[in-house]
Amino acid sequence: MHGAVMFGPGDVRVVERSEPRLLDPTDAIIRVSASCICGSDLWPYRGVEAYDWPAPMGHEYVGIVEEVGGEVRTIEPGQFVVGSFWASDNTCEICQAGYQSACINRVPMGALGAQAEMLRVPLADGTLVATPEVPADDLVPSLLAASDVLGTGWFAANAAEAGPGKTVAVVGDGAVGLHAVLAAKQLGAERIIAISRHEPRQSLAREYGATDIVEERGEDGVAAIRELTDGLGAHSVVEAVGTQESMMQAIRSTRAGGHVGFVGVGHGVEVPGEELFWSLAHVHGGPAPVRRFLPDLVELICNRQIDPGKVFDLELPLDEAPAGYAAMDQRTAIKVLLHP
Amino acid sequence: MHGAVMFGPGDVRVVERSEPRLLDPTDAIIRVSASCICGSDLWPYRGVEAYDWPAPMGHEYVGIVEEVGGEVRTIEPGQFVVGSFWASDNTCEICQAGYQSACINRVPMGALGAQAEMLRVPLADGTLVATPEVPADDLVPSLLAASDVLGTGWFAANAAEAGPGKTVAVVGDGAVGLHAVLAAKQLGAERIIAISRHEPRQSLAREYGATDIVEERGEDGVAAIRELTDGLGAHSVVEAVGTQESMMQAIRSTRAGGHVGFVGVGHGVEVPGEELFWSLAHVHGGPAPVRRFLPDLVELICNRQIDPGKVFDLELPLDEAPAGYAAMDQRTAIKVLLHP
Repeated sequence: MHGAVMFGPGDVRVVERSEPRLLDPTDAIIRVSASCICGSDLWPYRGVEAYDWPAPMGHEYVGIVEEVGGEVRTIEPGQFVVGSFWASDNTCEICQAGYQSACINRVPMGALGAQAEMLRVPLADGTLVATPEVPADDLVPSLLAASDVLGTGWFAANAAEAGPGKTVAVVGDGAVGLHAVLAAKQLGAERIIAISRHEPRQSLAREYGATDIVEERGEDGVAAIRELTDGLGAHSVVEAVGTQESMMQAIRSTRAGGHVGFVGVGHGVEVPGEELFWSLAHVHGGPAPVRRFLPDLVELICNRQIDPGKVFDLELPLDEAPAGYAAMDQRTAIKVLLHP
Repeated sequence: MHGAVMFGPGDVRVVERSEPRLLDPTDAIIRVSASCICGSDLWPYRGVEAYDWPAPMGHEYVGIVEEVGGEVRTIEPGQFVVGSFWASDNTCEICQAGYQSACINRVPMGALGAQAEMLRVPLADGTLVATPEVPADDLVPSLLAASDVLGTGWFAANAAEAGPGKTVAVVGDGAVGLHAVLAAKQLGAERIIAISRHEPRQSLAREYGATDIVEERGEDGVAAIRELTDGLGAHSVVEAVGTQESMMQAIRSTRAGGHVGFVGVGHGVEVPGEELFWSLAHVHGGPAPVRRFLPDLVELICNRQIDPGKVFDLELPLDEAPAGYAAMDQRTAIKVLLHP
C-alpha cells in the first residue's frame, strides 16, 4: 500500500509500505477514508524535533473497519470510525478520569502512520467511535477534524473553562485555534476574541463565533485584550501555538482567577514561576484527551450542528502529500486533507 | 509605639515608629493583639529579595478595633478582627470571583508593618472579619494563623482540589504545608502524604491528618509518592516551598489530570513548558486570596473544630522580634508569634 514517510527534515515521500496486520487481539485494521497533515508534523519537517528516520507519518484518520481482533467487542467490520491520535483502553483509572491521552496502556498513533491506505488501530474498543451509519461524503472532513484538531481545540476551550458569561481569548489562528473558537461558542461563551492577522482565518474565526478580532501579538496583543476587558484580562484564554511568546501572551491576557488552556506543544518554552504565581491564573493543557469528547463531537457533526471541516482549505490525493507538507509549512494552507 | 523594622539583610530592630492615623474614610486603626513572622519575611532577611530599607515588617495580624473612618459600615470599635495580608474591597469583580489578593484596589499590608503595637488597615469593611465576641486568649494564635499561613495552606489545598476520594501530597513542612495538611483533612481527602524529614513537623502533620510521611525530596520524593499511588501520582499536590526542586517535585508527583496548588513564591523558578504539557496537570496558585476563606476559618476556630495555632512553637514579646527572625531563619522554630 502507499503511505507517506518522512526521510528527514523537509523530505516527505509517498512510498510502498507493507499492509498492516492484526498484531494483538484488541487491534482493528481500517481502510483509511481520509487522513491529514498536522501542525505538529511540521516540527520534524522543520528539523525542530529529532526523529528516527525514516518515519511513517500521520496520526489523524477516519475510515472503514476491515477486520478486528478476537477480543474486540464494540467495533465491527463495515463501520465508519473516528479515532484520536492516542490509542487508549478507555477503562483504566486515568481514562475514566477523562485523560485518555495519558492512558496507562496508550499507544501513539503517529508511530503507525495514518497517512496511508490502511491503518492498524490498537485498543480498538477504547480508541474508536463509530458513526451511526456510514456518513455522507461531505461529512468526512468534519469527522476527520474531530480526530485531532477539533478535539484538541475543544479540550483547550474546556481546559480554559469557556462557558456562559465568559470572555474567551484564543491565541493562535491555526486549525486548533479556529476550532477552539468554535468550541467556545458551543460551550456558550459570551464573547470570543480571536487573535489573528490573516484575513481568511479572521473570516473563518468570525463564522465559528468570534465576536472580536485582535491583530496584535505579544505585549501589544496583551494590551489589546486588556483594553477589551476593562483592564482585567479575559476569563478564559486558549494557547494554540506553542512558542514562548504565545504562552506568555496567554498567561498575561488572563485575569486573576481565570483559566489558560494550552495545547501548543511548548518547544523550549519556560514559564517563569514568579510570573505564574502573581498571575493567579489556572493553567492546564497538554496532549488533548480527544477520546473524552469524541462521542459528543461525532454527534454534533452527524447532526450537522457544527462544521469543523471548513479548516481544510486544501485537499490532495495521498500521493501528493509532499505538496501538502510544503503548503502547510509555507502557511498557504491552514490544513491539508489527504485522500488515499 | 514600638514596631519591627528591617534595616537590611539579617538586621531587624524594634524601634519607635509613629502611631498610625486614619488616612482614608475606609480605614480602621487596630490595636494589635498578636502578630507573627512569616516564611516570606525570610526572603529579604536572607538577602534573596531586594527591599527599600528601612522597611517596617509584618503582614499577619489580629487585634481590637480602636477607631474607624467615616465610611466604614460593618466594622466597629471594640470588635476583635482578623484580616489578611492584602487589604481588599471585597466588592470588585475580581474579589467577587474569590480572588481578593488581586483586588483592583488592593493594598499590601506588609508595607504598613503589622509587627507593631498599632496598625492601619485600609478598606476595613472588605478586609476585616470580626469574631462573634472577643475570643478567649488561647484562641488568639489560631485566629492569627488564619491571617496568612492557615488561609494560604487552605487556598493551596483548595487549588489542588483536595477532597473526598483524593490522595493529596504536600511538599513543604513549614507552617503553610502543615496547614495544607489540616485543610486537606477538613476538605475530606482520603489519604494525605506529608513530605517531611523533621520529626516534630512529622508529628504535627500526623496530628493534622497526614496518613503517610515521605522523607525523600526531589526525584526520590517523586518516586516515593508514585509508589504509594499505584505508579500514577497523587490526585492533588500542594507546593509550599517555592524552589525549583519543590515545584518540579510537585508537578512530577501529580497524576495526569490531577491538580497542583502552589503557594511558595517562586524565586527564580522556571517551569519547562514541554514538561508541563506532558504532565497534563492543572497548575494553580499565587498569593492566597485568604479573605475568601476567612469567615469559614474564623468559625471553625471559634467553634474549636481546628487548632491551627499549634504551628506557633515560639512566642516572644514584640521587642524580641530579632530573636524570632533568627529562630525562623535557623529553622529552630516553625513559626514565631509576637506579643506587642
